[in-house]
Amino acid sequence: MQIDLAQLAASQAYKLMISALVPRPIAFVSTVGEDGSHNVAPFSFFMGVTGNPPTVAVSVEHRPDGPKDTVRNIRAIGEFVVNMVSEEIAEQMNVASGDYPYGVDEFKLAGLTPAPSVRVRPPRVAESPVSFECRVVKMLEIGRSPNTVTFGEILVAHIRDDIYLADKQRVDTPKLHAVGRLGGPQYCRVRDIFEMVRPVVKR
Amino acid sequence: MQIDLAQLAASQAYKLMISALVPRPIAFVSTVGEDGSHNVAPFSFFMGVTGNPPTVAVSVEHRPDGPKDTVRNIRAIGEFVVNMVSEEIAEQMNVASGDYPYGVDEFKLAGLTPAPSVRVRPPRVAESPVSFECRVVKMLEIGRSPNTVTFGEILVAHIRDDIYLADKQRVDTPKLHAVGRLGGPQYCRVRDIFEMVRPVVKR
Repeated sequence: MQIDLAQLAASQAYKLMISALVPRPIAFVSTVGEDGSHNVAPFSFFMGVTGNPPTVAVSVEHRPDGPKDTVRNIRAIGEFVVNMVSEEIAEQMNVASGDYPYGVDEFKLAGLTPAPSVRVRPPRVAESPVSFECRVVKMLEIGRSPNTVTFGEILVAHIRDDIYLADKQRVDTPKLHAVGRLGGPQYCRVRDIFEMVRPVVKR
Repeated sequence: MQIDLAQLAASQAYKLMISALVPRPIAFVSTVGEDGSHNVAPFSFFMGVTGNPPTVAVSVEHRPDGPKDTVRNIRAIGEFVVNMVSEEIAEQMNVASGDYPYGVDEFKLAGLTPAPSVRVRPPRVAESPVSFECRVVKMLEIGRSPNTVTFGEILVAHIRDDIYLADKQRVDTPKLHAVGRLGGPQYCRVRDIFEMVRPVVKR
């Protein structure tokens, strides 16, 4: 099957993309507004960018009436927290994914706890197994909606003690019980893990 | 556990990121050089950006001696193909992931078949369940290595007939048998799928 994407409506092209570009990690992004209001919302157009310095990017589509609260808050404050989503908080993340009016506190709505961050103003999600405190490096607009792509440098990582490998200074990934995003209402668990060793090439 | 990322070496910060920012989709990127040579290599710092128009982004770290073949070819030609990785071609993708010298044809090395694209010069991977022919929209450098982040508009999608839902114009995601990238040598299958319906908010 061969599909000319220019022949599809943007909403249909989006549905095709999210059904195929899988599995996607979920950035559960917490922000704070200039008025001090808290916001937390999930996005799966999200990636690592580099480890030097540690940087992530997240793409957020504007609503017809302007940027979503997440982008509005990040623009105002220049900081955000990316919280990873485990199976244990998947339902709460889904509650927070609704398109609520500005000022609604999704922490309260979803029964999540805002914990103070150490280097940025937005709180992290206390129930999240891993949180990255980020400072904005760059924001740019892409496409016709448009989307705002925010690049953020990770300043501080919070990792739940029972999933942290102290000797290796990293997460014990299988114990993270991460949730991946697929298309429509579908998500996946990260339970079926296998290993392949990258070939070593002498140069 | 709370970690100040500025205290970690870049290589260690990278390892921490890839152990936690999971599961990551894999862009198995095929390109062609000005000399006509083929290249195909996997990257998991990769995301959807928007459906309007359908756009993806991939971040590729430079080697100490300059950009990798993928970035060198994309810069020269302005086009690339993102092939998704299913369980059936995971081993071949891993073979292609080695850091080979310029001019090595990873298609031949891994036993994959280059199939002609319809709108761009680089071939797609015939064995891949989904391929996106892309034209460069924007390239930018981020970080100290640096990384080149390439934004590409998807012009054409190729989808294997048995995983295409014609009535919905999208992929039957569970049948895709996609492979996700985790940290180190770890990958995950996308077999353990569940559904959550997004809350509808009246505004």
